[in-house]
Amino acid sequence: MPTFPQSFPMNGGDGPHSYIHNSSYQKVAIDGVKERTSEAILEKLDLEFLNRNSEENILRIVDFGCSIGPNTFDVVQNIIDTVKQKRLKENKTYIGAPLEFQVCFNDQPNNDFNTLFRTQPFFSRKEYFSVGVPGSFHGRVLPKNSLHIGHTSYTLHWLSNVPQHVCDKKSPALNKSYIQCNNLVDEVTKAYKIQFRKDFGGFLEARAEELVSGGLMILSGQCLPDGIPKALTWQGVVIDMIGDCLMDLAKLGITSKEKIELFSLPTYIPHISEFKANIEQNENFNVETMEEISHPMDYMPLTNDFITSMFRAILNTIIEEHFGEGVVNELFSRLAKRLDKYPIDFKRCKKYVNYFIVLKRK
Amino acid sequence: MPTFPQSFPMNGGDGPHSYIHNSSYQKVAIDGVKERTSEAILEKLDLEFLNRNSEENILRIVDFGCSIGPNTFDVVQNIIDTVKQKRLKENKTYIGAPLEFQVCFNDQPNNDFNTLFRTQPFFSRKEYFSVGVPGSFHGRVLPKNSLHIGHTSYTLHWLSNVPQHVCDKKSPALNKSYIQCNNLVDEVTKAYKIQFRKDFGGFLEARAEELVSGGLMILSGQCLPDGIPKALTWQGVVIDMIGDCLMDLAKLGITSKEKIELFSLPTYIPHISEFKANIEQNENFNVETMEEISHPMDYMPLTNDFITSMFRAILNTIIEEHFGEGVVNELFSRLAKRLDKYPIDFKRCKKYVNYFIVLKRK
Repeated sequence: MPTFPQSFPMNGGDGPHSYIHNSSYQKVAIDGVKERTSEAILEKLDLEFLNRNSEENILRIVDFGCSIGPNTFDVVQNIIDTVKQKRLKENKTYIGAPLEFQVCFNDQPNNDFNTLFRTQPFFSRKEYFSVGVPGSFHGRVLPKNSLHIGHTSYTLHWLSNVPQHVCDKKSPALNKSYIQCNNLVDEVTKAYKIQFRKDFGGFLEARAEELVSGGLMILSGQCLPDGIPKALTWQGVVIDMIGDCLMDLAKLGITSKEKIELFSLPTYIPHISEFKANIEQNENFNVETMEEISHPMDYMPLTNDFITSMFRAILNTIIEEHFGEGVVNELFSRLAKRLDKYPIDFKRCKKYVNYFIVLKRK
Repeated sequence: MPTFPQSFPMNGGDGPHSYIHNSSYQKVAIDGVKERTSEAILEKLDLEFLNRNSEENILRIVDFGCSIGPNTFDVVQNIIDTVKQKRLKENKTYIGAPLEFQVCFNDQPNNDFNTLFRTQPFFSRKEYFSVGVPGSFHGRVLPKNSLHIGHTSYTLHWLSNVPQHVCDKKSPALNKSYIQCNNLVDEVTKAYKIQFRKDFGGFLEARAEELVSGGLMILSGQCLPDGIPKALTWQGVVIDMIGDCLMDLAKLGITSKEKIELFSLPTYIPHISEFKANIEQNENFNVETMEEISHPMDYMPLTNDFITSMFRAILNTIIEEHFGEGVVNELFSRLAKRLDKYPIDFKRCKKYVNYFIVLKRK
């Protein structure tokens, strides 16, 4: 059943700092695997097998960690178009009524579902029945055997909770000097690794129960190349910079050093072999596809404004939750200035490994 | 598929004028049929019959027109408790995994689902998987054969649209003198009757497709006694008073007479025999129960403050939509004063007939 751990959804509404208007980096990544997603469905999905046990002619699709749109609408539409194409290709007439699509948009209960529902493209209301599924994807959010195609992209780095010891003053794993796991402090990395294994394991266990046999789970996201600390990636550099900006605010009395020392992001980027091992440990799935790809924007220097807006849309909720409402504006205007002063050297920074994985439920 | 007609959900959020804090009249009515609902499920629901065609062990419940809570949470919990009680009573072990409940909360896409999801009682997350279903219940909102128990209470008087001619200056059905259908102008009543028949017919058609054979649809709400115009009920008196208060505002230039003449509520209270005839025309259902009951607060004079808050929570969205944001406060403070000046004579006012109906899908 869904648990209600800490949850920090993307920035809601459709204002200038909303996720809706600041998620093109994620959109480019999703577009980058659009074809692979279609190919996987065309090759790996066995439509007859899916509906053999039920009178229903429903194909249920879930986007886990859908946020507020618009990326999620493109993802589910691409999946639906591909399934339709597959039925035409196989020109098999299926018994009973025509296939109906139900699309479940899953995210944390405090995600801005109001904006998601109101911005759903009008034409898509003729294509599928939409539902919002509030709940943490680290546990069950749907009944057993009710899901045919699951999808999640650029979400699995979010943990259900910050690892316990990382904010414990008496623990060697206290993440005192940084606000993220940047792999520079072994005890901290170990604590995050354990939390990730538990959370990702919970994610796969839950999907295994929700998916029908033969159902597909499509995963895309980012890992670290083996042996590379996050601190050497541009994303790691930016978040460490945000930590430095917070320290500036502490010196001005806008927040306190102690608050920063007890603040650590509930996110973890695993190393690629660690991530693959986590998948292979789960016995409920066959790995149909496991590809390493690059992010289309990997070799494009991003503007400071782009970086600042992107991270603000992602971190706005959690920063406000931990430091209060007055901090966000000042923090991200300082980040912009710091980026101008110390521009990111994209060439020198290490690149994430982007993965595209398709699992089939045994 | 869901259409996107005019939609005016109840007042969102959890502020002083929200539906959450001003829906006790509806709650009392729902509590008043709680036992009847349980009895109907215990007697009429055939659990084995429901799941005979599918491997799934899911019982899917939908509250149509759920609004923002908390009433909807009580309704669905009562249904779940009753189904559990029934399984114990029949102490039949069902094949396969234990039964899992999925509860679908349906309301217009611009309903405040954020507040609904955030106020869902924490204990209930262990009881059922919840989803929000945005869409007008006058059309399909769920896939075929996917629903086992449908419920709706005090919602069916809402129309998908204001009847076309009622706001047409050139039409004899122009509702010039009133902001509601109060049955005093025959042409207006005729236009509303046609719209209601179409909408309620659409509602029943959609439920017939969504419900599995043997599934139950539980309806409760209000009708007019045959031959009684709405104008003679206290609800009708109050809404006519709101119309008068709007005219006051027009005299002050806060709004315009023309705007009021073109404003007519998209609600219609049918006469009881008209309502029953609409049900009996639909061939997809057996009528298992059709009872006329009284509302527990029928014989309690309501305070003016109670009346004003109740109607404000219901009409806030539609008044703002039609007259703009500045009108609501002034309008309902005038209503309170007018009620003080012309108190409702509850004894003299005619009472609605409250219905409790259980339909079984053939």
